[in-house]
Amino acid sequence: MNRRIEKLLAKAPRFMLIHDPANMYYLSGFTGDNGVLVLGENRQALITDSRYTAQGEKECPGFEVIDYKNAPMLSVAAGMTGAASCGFEADSISLKTYRDICAFIKNPAETHGLVEELRLIKDENEIKAIRKACLLADEAAAWLKNRIVPGIGEKELAAELEYHMKMQGAEGEAFPCIIAAGENAAFPHHAPEDRIIKEGDMVKCDFGCIKDRYCSDITRTFFIGEPSAEFAKIYGIVLEAQQRAIEAVKPGIPGKDIDSVAREFIAGAGYGDRFGHGLGHGLGLSVHDSPAFSPSSDLVLQPGIVATVEPGIYIPGRGGIRIEDDILVTENGCEILTHADK
Amino acid sequence: MNRRIEKLLAKAPRFMLIHDPANMYYLSGFTGDNGVLVLGENRQALITDSRYTAQGEKECPGFEVIDYKNAPMLSVAAGMTGAASCGFEADSISLKTYRDICAFIKNPAETHGLVEELRLIKDENEIKAIRKACLLADEAAAWLKNRIVPGIGEKELAAELEYHMKMQGAEGEAFPCIIAAGENAAFPHHAPEDRIIKEGDMVKCDFGCIKDRYCSDITRTFFIGEPSAEFAKIYGIVLEAQQRAIEAVKPGIPGKDIDSVAREFIAGAGYGDRFGHGLGHGLGLSVHDSPAFSPSSDLVLQPGIVATVEPGIYIPGRGGIRIEDDILVTENGCEILTHADK
Repeated sequence: MNRRIEKLLAKAPRFMLIHDPANMYYLSGFTGDNGVLVLGENRQALITDSRYTAQGEKECPGFEVIDYKNAPMLSVAAGMTGAASCGFEADSISLKTYRDICAFIKNPAETHGLVEELRLIKDENEIKAIRKACLLADEAAAWLKNRIVPGIGEKELAAELEYHMKMQGAEGEAFPCIIAAGENAAFPHHAPEDRIIKEGDMVKCDFGCIKDRYCSDITRTFFIGEPSAEFAKIYGIVLEAQQRAIEAVKPGIPGKDIDSVAREFIAGAGYGDRFGHGLGHGLGLSVHDSPAFSPSSDLVLQPGIVATVEPGIYIPGRGGIRIEDDILVTENGCEILTHADK
Repeated sequence: MNRRIEKLLAKAPRFMLIHDPANMYYLSGFTGDNGVLVLGENRQALITDSRYTAQGEKECPGFEVIDYKNAPMLSVAAGMTGAASCGFEADSISLKTYRDICAFIKNPAETHGLVEELRLIKDENEIKAIRKACLLADEAAAWLKNRIVPGIGEKELAAELEYHMKMQGAEGEAFPCIIAAGENAAFPHHAPEDRIIKEGDMVKCDFGCIKDRYCSDITRTFFIGEPSAEFAKIYGIVLEAQQRAIEAVKPGIPGKDIDSVAREFIAGAGYGDRFGHGLGHGLGLSVHDSPAFSPSSDLVLQPGIVATVEPGIYIPGRGGIRIEDDILVTENGCEILTHADK
């Protein structure tokens, strides 16, 4: 039994059903898109269909791989768990899966975020993968800086950026690239349009890479030519808010305190109502791995947490600035994982 | 009230809650990613958060747009539906949404596939969008034919293809492109790897474009140099199976009968156990819009249905051939929407 499953079972009912695909991968290595893990002290099984049995045997050492054939998938699981208490992931399943669980599993027990809690603290291999994903994002940011020229459209640049990241070795983009020029930069999550980038624009670029299944996430805002005095000032405020927040990161501090370092600085500079979103989020197998830095986050920082720090100021109709880096919480503070020029 | 909502309410409880994003778009035009539609004879509302209210007002004419602020989203919906019977989409919601529905809605009523049933028959504008998406796929197939050369890797070619489709005007790829060379072509849904394409390979390419939110889906299998006698023969069998199936398509026939035209022909040629998947699927706002041609599909064809026809023969360890086109069921038969060379 691997160490992750051991840790999970220490806090779980006698058996656990795992449906969430990222959690399945985290605990077993399985990358297929149909199946369920059944985890117990003495038996770990992957129940899947015939398309994935050979793959499961290769990817999941130590697991029994069972083809459910024409039986309902969870009826096969029920044969293993018997009358013992069996947990399921209540936060991520569909109503249909829930009904199957109720129909077949004798003693179902709702659980919340047990695997997500383990995933919060990254081990060496995970950090290695995230470092690679961050390096690719840095390289893409440097490439982007030279490629943003007047005359190119937002959509065109986004397509080029995604292609470039893949050609540099990314398995894919962590999410659809955000390229937002001029007034479009006022929308935190603008989808690229046909708008052509022109002299005098600010261009907010938010993107990330997947490497070895782990994500990076970075934002840089570029000026084409000279920024206006107002946005030059705003850039400085966002940058200092970010630096202050990063300096405040260390184990033992609740996430919301880091959020408020940046939020209060931005409010003090007169832009409190122009920073609507949270300061950052956890990062890992998914690009929004866990809550991290928001006004409501009670999560207490621990070494091994990886998160983004991304304050922004958005002025409707005119533009917006966001600067985002990824950090790893260490014993004494944090290490910045992305290093592209700001 | 638009005609689609009228049709829905004719078959639904007094009110309907719509959570599924594609269904929300189909009924209202809303493209945001948080919210719920509440549909009743005299009131149609979009309930969403402050990020999407301006967008909702622009995209959803005739709808009240309500910001749920700090209240639970469905408690706001409950204020509109009162004690009347209120349907929800039981096939696509999460357990969490289901619990919110049970907590707030006085008379919840499970519904299954009501909007999906409407989406099955495409109207003029939908067919126009699908035609555009098919044209883009044809163009990409022609481009691909020239670009597949010995020395290029599967992953590299997939990244180039995705970039090319976007530069030609696609909003995105309908799904991650499948590029499968040589022995990899034996896997129906192979994910591109570092494998380099070489002289003598077959290369199975399955991809699609999104245009005006509608999808196309096409597969072509290319030979680099001369095919082996065996795979040349298999290519001919797959092509004839596809042609026979397409010729059989017309209104009034159940989907499974079309599936069996291809399946029996392939079995007759001695490859019955090498064609494991269904013959095709519906196509529209999503790339697997509805079941269409499979051994179990009781769906009776009607004019306005759009679907793929994609037989394949796969020989483990050696390779595979699939040929896929998109068709529109017409009054007397069908129209083929993709025209790339075979």
